[in-house]
Amino acid sequence: MAIIECVPNVSEGRRPEVVRAIVDAVAATPGVHLLDWSSDASHNRSVITLAGTPAPLKAALLVLFERSLEAIDLRQHRGEHPRMGAVDVVPFVPIEGVTMQDCVQLARETGEAVAARFGVPVFLYEEAASAPERRNLEDIRRGEFEGLAAKMRQPAWQPDFGTAAPHPSGGASVIGARMPLIAYNINLATDRLDVAKKIAAAVRFSSGGFRFVKAMGVSLEDRGIVQVSMNLTNYEKTPIFRVFEVVRREAARYGVAVLESEIVGLVPSAALVSAAQWYLQLEGFSGDQVLEQRLRAAGPRA
Amino acid sequence: MAIIECVPNVSEGRRPEVVRAIVDAVAATPGVHLLDWSSDASHNRSVITLAGTPAPLKAALLVLFERSLEAIDLRQHRGEHPRMGAVDVVPFVPIEGVTMQDCVQLARETGEAVAARFGVPVFLYEEAASAPERRNLEDIRRGEFEGLAAKMRQPAWQPDFGTAAPHPSGGASVIGARMPLIAYNINLATDRLDVAKKIAAAVRFSSGGFRFVKAMGVSLEDRGIVQVSMNLTNYEKTPIFRVFEVVRREAARYGVAVLESEIVGLVPSAALVSAAQWYLQLEGFSGDQVLEQRLRAAGPRA
Repeated sequence: MAIIECVPNVSEGRRPEVVRAIVDAVAATPGVHLLDWSSDASHNRSVITLAGTPAPLKAALLVLFERSLEAIDLRQHRGEHPRMGAVDVVPFVPIEGVTMQDCVQLARETGEAVAARFGVPVFLYEEAASAPERRNLEDIRRGEFEGLAAKMRQPAWQPDFGTAAPHPSGGASVIGARMPLIAYNINLATDRLDVAKKIAAAVRFSSGGFRFVKAMGVSLEDRGIVQVSMNLTNYEKTPIFRVFEVVRREAARYGVAVLESEIVGLVPSAALVSAAQWYLQLEGFSGDQVLEQRLRAAGPRA
Repeated sequence: MAIIECVPNVSEGRRPEVVRAIVDAVAATPGVHLLDWSSDASHNRSVITLAGTPAPLKAALLVLFERSLEAIDLRQHRGEHPRMGAVDVVPFVPIEGVTMQDCVQLARETGEAVAARFGVPVFLYEEAASAPERRNLEDIRRGEFEGLAAKMRQPAWQPDFGTAAPHPSGGASVIGARMPLIAYNINLATDRLDVAKKIAAAVRFSSGGFRFVKAMGVSLEDRGIVQVSMNLTNYEKTPIFRVFEVVRREAARYGVAVLESEIVGLVPSAALVSAAQWYLQLEGFSGDQVLEQRLRAAGPRA
């Protein structure tokens, strides 16, 4: 069974009734599962987590754009989080039985439909990006909604779909494909922030660490301990267990022990199964030995 | 979403067309997923793995009994594996969103229906057993089909459902509820069979080891190594990682390293997730953070 996750970020987090109406409409799309949603008032932004196969997800996204464009006017929008669209970002994420290329294809088809139907220009990002300088969301979004009209007058910032001008109230949207993000923190049995910062620097990509790790050292004041707070952006290529073991080894260098680790939010089963597989030295193991995966492969029955 | 696994063992493993017809009929039951099936000619026995919710599984079992009783005559049956019924054993296994008690209840309801509809006496076993001396399948089945009529004349061996005499061609059936079995082997980087046997004795219940471990030491002649071959009968109470770590420690005592381990057949996701959780020192982690589990909880959509 093909499972794609889709995590649209919508620029509304202060009017619960508006968010609720959008979420309800999306969740009512046949074949789409609503896994989670949450709003942040200070960000004035909501994040919705959906799962399904390509066609239902595309249909749900069109509903999401329709409802969001009706209800959200970025000319009136204030919030701490950077944004350039009423529907700001839409990543498609391969979970099971689909390739990244399937998600790239779905991002393109959805982007094309959004631009054609709603007149919202669409930029493709990450794995779906049409050029290397468009891979990073931050680069595309720099200048935000307020700077968008000027930015889109530059030849370098023509959208992948739609016209060279923002939608008046809805701005532009960034749609793409990426691996699942895992928010992973490791707590250290110490209050020494310098240790957490040194370890974060050792494991993160930007300072020479693992390619798919973003990390910072932070203090958990109320508990009197420190944390290496991370995003793992490709758990297949930079797996959880390897990051954990290196953090543990680096901490030991300073005489510090790992107290515990935590996963914030959702995690694909495969990310945990691969850790079990590594620690248990499991050979010849295949994902379809996992009973629940076999069950999903058997598909739904009436 | 409630998921129960059911693993009926049927006394036919030499006539593929007969087994195929039984499997097809069972798999056609709405709401039932066929996960696996295999036949063993020397055992003259087939094992079918199904999954579903209680009502569809019960319906499928009634179909299984009907087809098996039509096609199998134990008076003609020869095979290496002990058996006393055309449908010999039916365990129900809680996988997700159901309790052991739900499975016990399902075993009782199915047993009652089988006895009433087909005149096959039913013994309840394991967690569904009506008395401690009936928990073990081996105790119930001792004497096999050939000794069954005499055994059932004893007051101690009246069935839980049905009359005190076997079905003429179909014998009697054992139905119950148990935890998932995990067939788990650890291969050692040595050819010293005595080491594998000593470690097996250290970890298995019968000689003082873990409560839910059956183990023996065997030689893998063709590879020149030895194996601690195990069945884990309750992975919640005696988890994989603990068994692995103790085997590893015991092996080290003899200067021997663990080469690898292997899981034969299916394993519930939770058994691997708990290993990941332990090794990664994950705190505050809950199964519903596993994306696929959230998806199953969301239930099927049209």
